[in-house]
Amino acid sequence: MSTRLRNDRLLRALARQPVDMTPVWLMRQAGRYLPEYREARARAGSFLTLCTTPELACEVTLQPVRRFPLDAAILFSDILTIPDAMGLGLEFDDQGPHFSRPLRSAAEIDRLGVPDPEEALRYVPDTVRLVRRELDGMVPLIGFSGSPWTLATYMVEGGSSHDYRLIKGLCFTEPAAARRLLDVLARAITVYLNAQIAAGAQAIMLFDTWGGVLTEHGYREYSLDPMRQVVAGLTRQADGRDVPVIVFTKGGSAWLEAQADLGVDALQLDWTVSLASARARVGDRVALQGNLDPALLVAPVARMEAEVRTLLADYGPWPGHVFNLGHGVTPDVDPGHVGRLVDAVHRLSLAYHR
Amino acid sequence: MSTRLRNDRLLRALARQPVDMTPVWLMRQAGRYLPEYREARARAGSFLTLCTTPELACEVTLQPVRRFPLDAAILFSDILTIPDAMGLGLEFDDQGPHFSRPLRSAAEIDRLGVPDPEEALRYVPDTVRLVRRELDGMVPLIGFSGSPWTLATYMVEGGSSHDYRLIKGLCFTEPAAARRLLDVLARAITVYLNAQIAAGAQAIMLFDTWGGVLTEHGYREYSLDPMRQVVAGLTRQADGRDVPVIVFTKGGSAWLEAQADLGVDALQLDWTVSLASARARVGDRVALQGNLDPALLVAPVARMEAEVRTLLADYGPWPGHVFNLGHGVTPDVDPGHVGRLVDAVHRLSLAYHR
Repeated sequence: MSTRLRNDRLLRALARQPVDMTPVWLMRQAGRYLPEYREARARAGSFLTLCTTPELACEVTLQPVRRFPLDAAILFSDILTIPDAMGLGLEFDDQGPHFSRPLRSAAEIDRLGVPDPEEALRYVPDTVRLVRRELDGMVPLIGFSGSPWTLATYMVEGGSSHDYRLIKGLCFTEPAAARRLLDVLARAITVYLNAQIAAGAQAIMLFDTWGGVLTEHGYREYSLDPMRQVVAGLTRQADGRDVPVIVFTKGGSAWLEAQADLGVDALQLDWTVSLASARARVGDRVALQGNLDPALLVAPVARMEAEVRTLLADYGPWPGHVFNLGHGVTPDVDPGHVGRLVDAVHRLSLAYHR
Repeated sequence: MSTRLRNDRLLRALARQPVDMTPVWLMRQAGRYLPEYREARARAGSFLTLCTTPELACEVTLQPVRRFPLDAAILFSDILTIPDAMGLGLEFDDQGPHFSRPLRSAAEIDRLGVPDPEEALRYVPDTVRLVRRELDGMVPLIGFSGSPWTLATYMVEGGSSHDYRLIKGLCFTEPAAARRLLDVLARAITVYLNAQIAAGAQAIMLFDTWGGVLTEHGYREYSLDPMRQVVAGLTRQADGRDVPVIVFTKGGSAWLEAQADLGVDALQLDWTVSLASARARVGDRVALQGNLDPALLVAPVARMEAEVRTLLADYGPWPGHVFNLGHGVTPDVDPGHVGRLVDAVHRLSLAYHR
């Protein structure tokens, strides 16, 4: 695991150190837009088998970094592995993920325990170990988890929701039970991420997919504070290296200042805030990751390149930018377009790193 | 139409003048949560008939102000009346509104004309005239329209969308055609709103429902600038009174400063930004309307009242707050709860207006 990294642009940028060109990786870079992914998915039989079989999860993790000169790999997994290990019964259908046994009472919340990541979730650190061996220092590997609020939302709603009525109802009517749920999730996420770090994850990302549905006060109480608990418990050094932490609250661009005080190294931005505005608001307290609108990946190449230029100019010559989308790659994207994007970021960013 | 207003709290608050208590009205206050609305809707046979029959639209406009001590009525109508009058064929089904003839080419955009609001849209000013007569000065009547970007989105997507791929595709591949579409819509919206003002609307609200899906640069170009064009063309005085304008970009809380420079009187806020943060950012340049999370309307009354207290304290003793939700009332709300909310706002706000 102490293999020397041949490409450490991501880690340097997250530490706000100078780089030769802006590092780039893409959320959902391993996904359905790649024919080799669809082939592996078909072989696995189900999405869950793909996630829980280390050899298959490793293979799809590596697919995009073999095809494109990306500056990072991200563990292929699902954000709902922890609730599944807690016994809620994760299933996938056309509507996305859902639980066969969603949380329906405070008593059920009180029965939840912290899963041992080397037992029920062992396939995750196993995948991390396998990917690190296969990568052999080519690029760093990012591990991840959903945030406490995001996992709680799925566990109480039972799946996706339009109005988050059940989880908000829990917060309104049984705030103590809601806090206990967020606490057990924060503890479970902490040991889960520390197991990923121990297995070799070189950076960590927290996906707070549903933080953006809260009020500003609610966000601080139910999303930000439990994330702070996770961040405080993470192993931030491994193999003699710092392990940087990135946080992403989708729809949370009104609260960047509060996120910058979490004690993390970087904020992922959705595309609603420009890198210039975001940097003006958070200064150089954190690195910034993002934030091309994924719709540009189906636009003409010249238009996409123009937007890359705008993003790079918005950030400017300062250290601390990791290029990414503002959300995941969509299945209808032409893989050739992704290659053009990665090349454009590297080429057009050279001027900012002299 | 020059009837003296017996309750001018809304207009005073929008002008940032002192009031005796904070005025309150609710987005979608005329809607399915009211049994008398469901009865009128059943009598009409279809939602579109309800909108386009002045007697029925007037009746449902008045229902909530008869039942609750609200400080404003808002015209009952749909945001897609203009595209319908342009010939796109508005229809409603379980998935919401859609067009039978969505825009599919630049040539179709170039054939669009500005509908005469006293011809194809005559039912709208007719409803305004009827409501004003029936209200007889009880509370002011708010007229409204969708924003140019929001109408363009529906017209190109054909209905609701998950990824706004078609309208963004138009902006990326045919930016000149997109600008022509936004221009004809800005002109149509301006004459439509001026017809509502001439018919008696005493305040105007622009609903920019889909501005929040854009990037910061895209928002300025495709949503904000066309709204500025509308605002600049509005009749801002009628009956010797100022006609205040409120703008609402849902999901646009990252861009409040830019919205405050639109030349409008007030910004409606969704619930993701606290009134304290919003006021710190826009100062007293505009009044603020909002922004209770509608989920509180299904919470226990004590919890809802606690949130009302927080909102009022967040805004503080300054003039210029209109209480509202951060989004519309949902159909599952108990009407009794709405009455409790209106009473709580009036009662708890007294302390701030001494």
